[in-house]
Amino acid sequence: MAGNSFGNIFKLSTFGESHGPALGGVIDGCPSGLKIDLSAIELEMDRRKPGQSTIVTQRKEQDIVTFYSGIFEGKTTGTPIGFLIHNTDQKSKDYSHIKDSYRPSHADYVYDKKYGHRDYRGGGRSSARETACRVVAGAIAKQILSDVKITAFVSSVGEIKIDKHYSELDFSEIEKNPVRCADPNTAASMEKFIKEIRKEGDTIGGVVSCVIENTPVGLGEPVFDKLHADLGKAMLSINAVKGFEFGSGFQGTRLKGSQHNDSFNADGKTKTNNSGGIQGGISNGMDIYFNVAFKPVATIMKAQQTIDSNNNVVEMKGKGRHDPCVVPRAVPIVEAMAALVLVDFYLINRTIKL
Amino acid sequence: MAGNSFGNIFKLSTFGESHGPALGGVIDGCPSGLKIDLSAIELEMDRRKPGQSTIVTQRKEQDIVTFYSGIFEGKTTGTPIGFLIHNTDQKSKDYSHIKDSYRPSHADYVYDKKYGHRDYRGGGRSSARETACRVVAGAIAKQILSDVKITAFVSSVGEIKIDKHYSELDFSEIEKNPVRCADPNTAASMEKFIKEIRKEGDTIGGVVSCVIENTPVGLGEPVFDKLHADLGKAMLSINAVKGFEFGSGFQGTRLKGSQHNDSFNADGKTKTNNSGGIQGGISNGMDIYFNVAFKPVATIMKAQQTIDSNNNVVEMKGKGRHDPCVVPRAVPIVEAMAALVLVDFYLINRTIKL
Amino acid sequence: MAGNSFGNIFKLSTFGESHGPALGGVIDGCPSGLKIDLSAIELEMDRRKPGQSTIVTQRKEQDIVTFYSGIFEGKTTGTPIGFLIHNTDQKSKDYSHIKDSYRPSHADYVYDKKYGHRDYRGGGRSSARETACRVVAGAIAKQILSDVKITAFVSSVGEIKIDKHYSELDFSEIEKNPVRCADPNTAASMEKFIKEIRKEGDTIGGVVSCVIENTPVGLGEPVFDKLHADLGKAMLSINAVKGFEFGSGFQGTRLKGSQHNDSFNADGKTKTNNSGGIQGGISNGMDIYFNVAFKPVATIMKAQQTIDSNNNVVEMKGKGRHDPCVVPRAVPIVEAMAALVLVDFYLINRTIKL
Amino acid sequence: MAGNSFGNIFKLSTFGESHGPALGGVIDGCPSGLKIDLSAIELEMDRRKPGQSTIVTQRKEQDIVTFYSGIFEGKTTGTPIGFLIHNTDQKSKDYSHIKDSYRPSHADYVYDKKYGHRDYRGGGRSSARETACRVVAGAIAKQILSDVKITAFVSSVGEIKIDKHYSELDFSEIEKNPVRCADPNTAASMEKFIKEIRKEGDTIGGVVSCVIENTPVGLGEPVFDKLHADLGKAMLSINAVKGFEFGSGFQGTRLKGSQHNDSFNADGKTKTNNSGGIQGGISNGMDIYFNVAFKPVATIMKAQQTIDSNNNVVEMKGKGRHDPCVVPRAVPIVEAMAALVLVDFYLINRTIKL
Repeated sequence: MAGNSFGNIFKLSTFGESHGPALGGVIDGCPSGLKIDLSAIELEMDRRKPGQSTIVTQRKEQDIVTFYSGIFEGKTTGTPIGFLIHNTDQKSKDYSHIKDSYRPSHADYVYDKKYGHRDYRGGGRSSARETACRVVAGAIAKQILSDVKITAFVSSVGEIKIDKHYSELDFSEIEKNPVRCADPNTAASMEKFIKEIRKEGDTIGGVVSCVIENTPVGLGEPVFDKLHADLGKAMLSINAVKGFEFGSGFQGTRLKGSQHNDSFNADGKTKTNNSGGIQGGISNGMDIYFNVAFKPVATIMKAQQTIDSNNNVVEMKGKGRHDPCVVPRAVPIVEAMAALVLVDFYLINRTIKL
Repeated sequence: MAGNSFGNIFKLSTFGESHGPALGGVIDGCPSGLKIDLSAIELEMDRRKPGQSTIVTQRKEQDIVTFYSGIFEGKTTGTPIGFLIHNTDQKSKDYSHIKDSYRPSHADYVYDKKYGHRDYRGGGRSSARETACRVVAGAIAKQILSDVKITAFVSSVGEIKIDKHYSELDFSEIEKNPVRCADPNTAASMEKFIKEIRKEGDTIGGVVSCVIENTPVGLGEPVFDKLHADLGKAMLSINAVKGFEFGSGFQGTRLKGSQHNDSFNADGKTKTNNSGGIQGGISNGMDIYFNVAFKPVATIMKAQQTIDSNNNVVEMKGKGRHDPCVVPRAVPIVEAMAALVLVDFYLINRTIKL
Repeated sequence: MAGNSFGNIFKLSTFGESHGPALGGVIDGCPSGLKIDLSAIELEMDRRKPGQSTIVTQRKEQDIVTFYSGIFEGKTTGTPIGFLIHNTDQKSKDYSHIKDSYRPSHADYVYDKKYGHRDYRGGGRSSARETACRVVAGAIAKQILSDVKITAFVSSVGEIKIDKHYSELDFSEIEKNPVRCADPNTAASMEKFIKEIRKEGDTIGGVVSCVIENTPVGLGEPVFDKLHADLGKAMLSINAVKGFEFGSGFQGTRLKGSQHNDSFNADGKTKTNNSGGIQGGISNGMDIYFNVAFKPVATIMKAQQTIDSNNNVVEMKGKGRHDPCVVPRAVPIVEAMAALVLVDFYLINRTIKL
Repeated sequence: MAGNSFGNIFKLSTFGESHGPALGGVIDGCPSGLKIDLSAIELEMDRRKPGQSTIVTQRKEQDIVTFYSGIFEGKTTGTPIGFLIHNTDQKSKDYSHIKDSYRPSHADYVYDKKYGHRDYRGGGRSSARETACRVVAGAIAKQILSDVKITAFVSSVGEIKIDKHYSELDFSEIEKNPVRCADPNTAASMEKFIKEIRKEGDTIGGVVSCVIENTPVGLGEPVFDKLHADLGKAMLSINAVKGFEFGSGFQGTRLKGSQHNDSFNADGKTKTNNSGGIQGGISNGMDIYFNVAFKPVATIMKAQQTIDSNNNVVEMKGKGRHDPCVVPRAVPIVEAMAALVLVDFYLINRTIKL
């Protein structure tokens, strides 16, 4: 089963290559009667788009979404929502130098081996440009989940990280700095560091953290479709992601049960929240929080050894306009994927009791 | 969509509670013509079963699998394989004390809230006993993937961890110690530590690592069903898992692109393997490796504060026979889930070229 | 995707061969909180079972269902319902004469070609014995749809048919005769005819009609999963079915729009019901009705020419205990499949509005 | 699960309303390496498009398909194929008179009741215009199945029908007459009759027959996803379809087993073909053939009684440009849906043997 659909009830199917005429998607299963706030969708697109600040790629896509169906007189009709995002600034000639070579740590090699031939322009389907469609769908999902608050932010860039618990952070700071770090001082250090990295022609990894408040109790479908399992898959499906942990995460492996267990208060809330808002794969009403690890972008402006399609060893050097660090633009993508997971479980949850 | 099926082509559906008469499953889509090695299935079941050593739960389930269909004259027929594992040692009275209370960090509370009532005996469906069915299916998947070698092992327990790269380890050591740690000295420390924890009536977390050798190039279905995304979901769906990372993982977020990129050799292999055998969501033929974080088991023999179904605060203390540390028995489960993911992508991959 | 699952939200997966130790199934997605009426399930099983009258096969299966999970203290828990039906009267030696030959108009030949080998005992997976599991699940689905009344009956056997509109029939007659014909006089003729056919060692086809009353408005998911499209698939998936028509059916193709259109009354009901209760793939609240065509059973007691697996032409003559006419036992199967379709759409329909 | 996707491996998702800016679709799972013949796609679109002859609707859509992805340098890449068909001749004002009323035997009423509001322009999503996207995908499916020959034709219009077995027909006649009837004399009568019907302001039903030659043995996935069950669903999902029968169909119910059974020849072919090329849900290599019943188009130019959304009884009379008989334009749609079913089973069939 080709893997370009996500979700069961609220289902997004996407298509499009970075250097074709357009990307697009279909959302099937969006409930009818939702007033669509187009400016809220645009806002999310702007958070993801290239060229938004000096620390991201300077490509100039405006990422305008055109809807073709499923919305009538401002409201969803229950029929599938089809949309396109036209590519306006693709410069395919930027990629002619890599036509026959495989960029290290890109998907070039595996696409060629798997499919027998490939669209070599800018990564084709494997480009992170594809995530624009996820943001469109996620923005609609957020409008359904109007009571739920999903907040992602950059918590580390390279070795620089926020050293506070999320509850000590002021989320209103996030959009005030180009890194989308929730701590202003750390943000300043990160920004400076990313600029240095860009000057070097290099790239750097980082971590995006996400907090979800006001999730209703009961979302998640064990035993396989646990809420955190689908959140994990959603995050790992984003380009450049290498890891996912929720609640106590990898740190929690060092603890004893007596330290880790979350005791109940009389109201059903827990005193601590090592569970990260999910127990047995089902939301328990506490904050859901998780971390997503992003590797450094593979395209660097430095010479690297690689091979061409005839297995000759060749040297390659990145050209074009690339992100020195992907995490600032990944923040809205993480939120979008979280919204897609939640809205699907929210709708499924309507079917599970008599 | 209720979440008790896993896989698309090779699809496992499971059922059963820890204290009902039996657990079971159906494997649909297993190719015909596979000679089933029943002793190999039994071997995997023995690696997971309770009572196998002094550092795991002392319940005495034999975990015998009975097949009802899909196998004829020793070979699979292409029709669905139905099986049962009878529960023989359930002691429901062990659980009468928790009938009306919610064990901290268990699924009791959320099952009750989600479904309106629950099978309170031993966790019911949320019990890790359910994973026995995964091991059955995984053992069959392994037989299809006879060239692929999947090896999981314990790499940390609490603060004790193996401080070597997996390539320096001798995997033949794993099954020689009850912890299933790949390093004999570290294994001894871990075993001692787990025994202390058990004596305290407490539990401890740990990490299971997994290495997959000889995966063919081309497995994985971007953009959503990336190989590592489905591996991540598979692992996160196992009871008590809190995190997943592959290749360079969370560590890789600290690196520069120039450090992280995997340069090609002339043969298409890479000099380094920070990618963890997967690029763009597709296997590249290098070793796949990943880490899975397990929290400490929630049931402890110490008094804890909790609430009952009338929201009265009550004290609770674990009884019965529980694992002080889950990772030794999780090793075959991690392998089974990895096998299920791989076999599904292996079969899907037959459909993608003309 | 192997085809042994049916439904999306309320999903049945089945397994088992006619001459293996048992058949069984898993129902995933059954809502929690349903009081299970076991005797109602038994009643449906009895309507389908062999040996129930002198005009059906004289095999003596009792078709006892054993549930293994998903039901606790008499109510569904929301977890998957696993069940078995043990085969108690299989006489595999009855089939030794066909081991190497392909019975005309059976699935023997195609199973062998498709899968490379087959379970030749009694048809294996292709036996209509498999439908017992559908009846179990359908009986549970009916209990969820307690307001909906699903009534199937035999409307023709060979050339003998009921010549009345369904609204003129007294459905309480159906279970009073072994044919399950809704008209007593026609039933008597049919019974006599089936007995003659059996004496000849031959078999005969027939039609089962089904009427569904009190379906809520709004069930069905266009454009592909139209209510009648899924009903059609459900019926065509039953062994020996060759056709499906609903509402005006094939007769309606001869009419003009001015004759065929169903005008509305002020209450939203329609004056006529050529639409058969479904418009645009969605139920409109009027009676749903449809016809299902069953071919004559392929196993006859007369000599037929066929081939063996070495392509030698051989003569074959049926042995064993077979149905001279399948429609009397098909009645509960048609109802069960209808219930499965309806319950699935009923649950999906909860997700489609904000 | 919203129902706008069809297929499992080769999966089509569609969107779009008849009077929105465009219809479109995504094909996921099309194998890579297929040389796309655009003119063959155009040809199929022309067979379906309005205005092609004097006996169909005189709307003037050109139905030009624009592809946005998945095809590179003339070949499929294995990534999803996204496409649009812009609506160029929609005249929404033609529908203002029905904005608040429900056309008899249309989907207006049920869409309104199901979704709470609807796109009333021309039927919106329920318009047969949606089938244009099916024809695009079917045309690509046909190119994959290059050895298989799928031929649909009109076999009856009202009471006028072809009275020959399909093997006596010359399929090269089909596209020579505007009715797409395979018999020239009958075609002439049908054409004359349709013109009379149009003059009356009325509509008429009919039957499309389809013959599939050269299907490989082994397609179909019992027990639920039988080849004929999925063909039936595919056909029943087409607008205005009321029935489906294959092989001997409803006629076969009148036969005895000794008459109906298809005896084998030494080569595995059968002497007769009452089975219609499918046994036990799996293709046996003989011709597949089936009939599809289409009701008369609901929109007529005569006054009819109906109700408005306030349940007032009102009179309504069709306006605009409608088909007097849908079957001539349904022929390519039937072929397209057949191709979609076959290609999906063809790809699935690659996964079922070791």
